[in-house]
Amino acid sequence: MRWHQTQLRLKPRSRGFHLVTQEIVSALPELGSFKIGMAHLFIQHTSASLAINENADPDVRGDMERWFNHAVPENARYFEHTTEGPDDMPAHIKALLAGTAVTIPIRGGRLALGTWQGIYLGEHRDQGGARTVVATLVGE
Amino acid sequence: MRWHQTQLRLKPRSRGFHLVTQEIVSALPELGSFKIGMAHLFIQHTSASLAINENADPDVRGDMERWFNHAVPENARYFEHTTEGPDDMPAHIKALLAGTAVTIPIRGGRLALGTWQGIYLGEHRDQGGARTVVATLVGE
Amino acid sequence: MRWHQTQLRLKPRSRGFHLVTQEIVSALPELGSFKIGMAHLFIQHTSASLAINENADPDVRGDMERWFNHAVPENARYFEHTTEGPDDMPAHIKALLAGTAVTIPIRGGRLALGTWQGIYLGEHRDQGGARTVVATLVGE
Repeated sequence: MRWHQTQLRLKPRSRGFHLVTQEIVSALPELGSFKIGMAHLFIQHTSASLAINENADPDVRGDMERWFNHAVPENARYFEHTTEGPDDMPAHIKALLAGTAVTIPIRGGRLALGTWQGIYLGEHRDQGGARTVVATLVGE
Repeated sequence: MRWHQTQLRLKPRSRGFHLVTQEIVSALPELGSFKIGMAHLFIQHTSASLAINENADPDVRGDMERWFNHAVPENARYFEHTTEGPDDMPAHIKALLAGTAVTIPIRGGRLALGTWQGIYLGEHRDQGGARTVVATLVGE
Repeated sequence: MRWHQTQLRLKPRSRGFHLVTQEIVSALPELGSFKIGMAHLFIQHTSASLAINENADPDVRGDMERWFNHAVPENARYFEHTTEGPDDMPAHIKALLAGTAVTIPIRGGRLALGTWQGIYLGEHRDQGGARTVVATLVGE
């Protein structure tokens, strides 16, 4: 039984959903030494998210962003938390809906993702900057 | 400290939310040997989901599906990812909202679910087919 | 490698999102003895949720509740599960969207939350009463 925990810094991205599988896997060479286990990725922010979705067609990420913008509009008349800009409160709601963390099984030294699965960073602010992720690997 | 990891194949189901607690528990007899631990269930698809919700009244699953169909409509004018059919892009969004994985505590050889809780498969495609779940048990 | 598992009883709260970080941390003094690990918090209900979001401005929790009430309205014409009151079926949907569990990394005897992150209880019923959470700590 072994643990590995580290803090990753994802490079800044524009508002929208982004595929970050390779950036995360590259930062975790220790993955290769686990035969079986779990990888827990936790984003330490409340206006950005981590989730699993389709890894192939960039249109999926675009449509995901368009749906979220439609479902969680800026300037809703009932928003009171408006001092940090019109993108701020929607970003908190989107982050809660999409999720703060993902847990992925490890098998044979690799993330056991399905063929079409990738890790999404949901950047929900207009200017989110670099985002910090705590990665915890446990297994044997 | 022990690990058990296996791949389950859920039988095909129609579009909608389905209670799969018994199908999953039956496929994991190893659960009985863990006094304390966690069960992680991860669906290897991007148009189906796993979640926890009410296990008693089938109307809840029906209303859940109706709400999702209302909130994530097919043929939204802003969708660009349309080549795989009108149910495809909504299925990706629904899967992201409902979630790709659930982690459930294990206590005394059983899943420590609340009285009214069950495991839902969200089948978000019209013809999703059999779905693969990676189950990882860890504990002692 | 050590496990600690316990059942917490959160005090009853009114409908809405509530910051419960301190109530949960206070009930888990064992956290201090883990150098590295994970804390898994699982709510044993289907009409209340656990999530991570902004810990500072109460307006964020208010806007979160207002958005959820707008997105998941009571008395939608297509709801069939109505015998337990107009707040019941929306509560199931909100619980599924916000999530049943959170997993948080442990580092140096503390939850490795970001500066602005806290644990939210989403109480989605008008009269939800006390809510039960199974807390599982694992690490070394």
